[in-house]
Amino acid sequence: MENFIFQNPVKLLMGRGMIAQLSKEIAADKRIMITFGGGSVKKNGVYDQVREALKNHYTVEFWGIEPNPSIETLRKAIALGKEQQVDYLLAVGGGSVIDGTKLIAAGLLYEGDAWDLVLARRPVTNTVPLSTVLTLPATGSEMNNGAVISRHETKEKYPFYANFPLFSILDPEVTFTLPPYQVACGLSDTFVHIMEQYMTTPGQSRVMDRWAEGVLQTLVEIAPKIRENQHDYQLMADFMLSATMALNGFVAMGVSQDWATHMIGHEITALHGLTHGHTLAIVLPATLRILRKSKGEKLLQYGERVWGIISGTKEERIDEAIRRTEEFFRSLGLTTRLHEEEIGQDTIVEIERRFNERKANYGENGEVTGEVAREILESAL
Amino acid sequence: MENFIFQNPVKLLMGRGMIAQLSKEIAADKRIMITFGGGSVKKNGVYDQVREALKNHYTVEFWGIEPNPSIETLRKAIALGKEQQVDYLLAVGGGSVIDGTKLIAAGLLYEGDAWDLVLARRPVTNTVPLSTVLTLPATGSEMNNGAVISRHETKEKYPFYANFPLFSILDPEVTFTLPPYQVACGLSDTFVHIMEQYMTTPGQSRVMDRWAEGVLQTLVEIAPKIRENQHDYQLMADFMLSATMALNGFVAMGVSQDWATHMIGHEITALHGLTHGHTLAIVLPATLRILRKSKGEKLLQYGERVWGIISGTKEERIDEAIRRTEEFFRSLGLTTRLHEEEIGQDTIVEIERRFNERKANYGENGEVTGEVAREILESAL
Repeated sequence: MENFIFQNPVKLLMGRGMIAQLSKEIAADKRIMITFGGGSVKKNGVYDQVREALKNHYTVEFWGIEPNPSIETLRKAIALGKEQQVDYLLAVGGGSVIDGTKLIAAGLLYEGDAWDLVLARRPVTNTVPLSTVLTLPATGSEMNNGAVISRHETKEKYPFYANFPLFSILDPEVTFTLPPYQVACGLSDTFVHIMEQYMTTPGQSRVMDRWAEGVLQTLVEIAPKIRENQHDYQLMADFMLSATMALNGFVAMGVSQDWATHMIGHEITALHGLTHGHTLAIVLPATLRILRKSKGEKLLQYGERVWGIISGTKEERIDEAIRRTEEFFRSLGLTTRLHEEEIGQDTIVEIERRFNERKANYGENGEVTGEVAREILESAL
Repeated sequence: MENFIFQNPVKLLMGRGMIAQLSKEIAADKRIMITFGGGSVKKNGVYDQVREALKNHYTVEFWGIEPNPSIETLRKAIALGKEQQVDYLLAVGGGSVIDGTKLIAAGLLYEGDAWDLVLARRPVTNTVPLSTVLTLPATGSEMNNGAVISRHETKEKYPFYANFPLFSILDPEVTFTLPPYQVACGLSDTFVHIMEQYMTTPGQSRVMDRWAEGVLQTLVEIAPKIRENQHDYQLMADFMLSATMALNGFVAMGVSQDWATHMIGHEITALHGLTHGHTLAIVLPATLRILRKSKGEKLLQYGERVWGIISGTKEERIDEAIRRTEEFFRSLGLTTRLHEEEIGQDTIVEIERRFNERKANYGENGEVTGEVAREILESAL
């Protein structure tokens, strides 16, 4: 086990009817800006529940934080927030709305252009307090201090770190009416978040391995049932809790991490707009195929504990573990090959060029250079 | 999944050499009282590391917080702390030292007798800040807000809740020289903490079940190896992390809890002074035997996932799961029967009387009354 420091102060309020707690959790004198994505929260009742809970609070609304939130949009939110002198932010949405609102929270207390804060690559601790009502289980942003911010004009996309939300409300009922494609991408995102923190050097922590495998086992168990019935409260509660636990530091204590799959996936989203969780379903199996040598021992453990693969030679078991992983993503209704999304060699060349330009050495051992990224993407064609 | 609210703000600093971080984590102007148990920290180097880290801080030491910390001792610490005007507490020890220091933290800001705070049965939020250096993995007190406080003159023992520690330092190396009996009791305590939050109604949360089972599987894997070599850093790190994760709320989200085994075990400690973790090793198997009907379905799941029991009738598999549980405790070097500790029928009668007097209805479903406690204890004779 490596030395580590862990702290996660986020208060989770999970369950039916928890949105009503907003009235108690936010002080009555706060000037709140509520941030939203598109209009789906008006159709599924979340908007009405939030309005009802905050009917005695001062609020201003900002609409239109898009998937892969852009600095162009967030600048407008920051301008509105400054104009209205807001001193509290409530993000109501999925990972993109929450990510974007983390930058707004920092931007409201910054004089210059908020894109500076992204480029500075330092965590920003001077922020307006922020809480969330989660509507789409996927990114884990509701219980971590990270975000990913895009800049449309340059097709750039960078990580950004600020403060944790004060609290996050998770009501599984809000997921019942999500588009099945978004649920599939959320399941994929959750699965790969775990894999980025697990599919590394074996033997670093037995208990962290078990917890990572426990989330994977849960996803494997619930995914086909969710495809059949997205209105099952218990299934959606386990999905929602798994997504939050997958990226809040709880499975990362004392173990190394990888994130090469994410780095490649981000480029596909930046270049083609493909939903984040979907890019991961395409890239992860290919990453495992190309890095099967360095990840072989952990792939054997993963195969046995998550998929019950116990017979065959080592190489056969590794093959089977990777095959089952890709099959899992396909069972979610997602494609797992680039050609199925009409993405071809030109994109691969461009990603290799970008990685080379920034001298990329991603992954646990820094082995994912531009050349290796190309091999991975060619394996995903 | 039941509705729940979760928050755990404790900062964990885990690994070799982390005690040196004390100098940075505690502000230079604090007036610190450091609390200790007996003198073992002077033999294993912990005391010297703490003194070195805090050599530029104002400190006063309080020694002698005993196992099952008593109000009689803690009153002395509170008096010293008030006299020295301390405004920060650092507990250096195991669960008893940390538990006791939680009451000191509350007592320092309370005018009356601190035993009032225990009897009030309300969480105390007005406390002096408290951090910990853990020396014995067992109770989880380093990452929760609970404590158990005893009163010798009346042989009473009650739970007490205050604020969480600000931070806790976990250096696995400090466990290398612990007496093997204390390690065995710590393993037993950790195992039963998980069981109290897991051996309940099945199907409440798949991911919480997996995480609980993950800690149990870890303990089953590491316990015999620790018995062979208590100086293995990786083993002791996994033990230490498991003990902390077993009672910090991380496996309790949205699931019901039991705690009947603890309530009976506390009485045995109060009457005979037997170490807490050891009482649990005696009581848990007996609790499972007597409550095998209401806990049957979960016992089958536990047997399969933790012990690999998949053949036989349901009743045979339940028998085997309970047998393996008792065998696990015996493999730690602990006795699992009352007669082995020369505890007999008179103690059972007294515990039944106490439970009846307070109209006890412990356990997940309130089924553990005085009469049922007697059945459990008779099954452990």
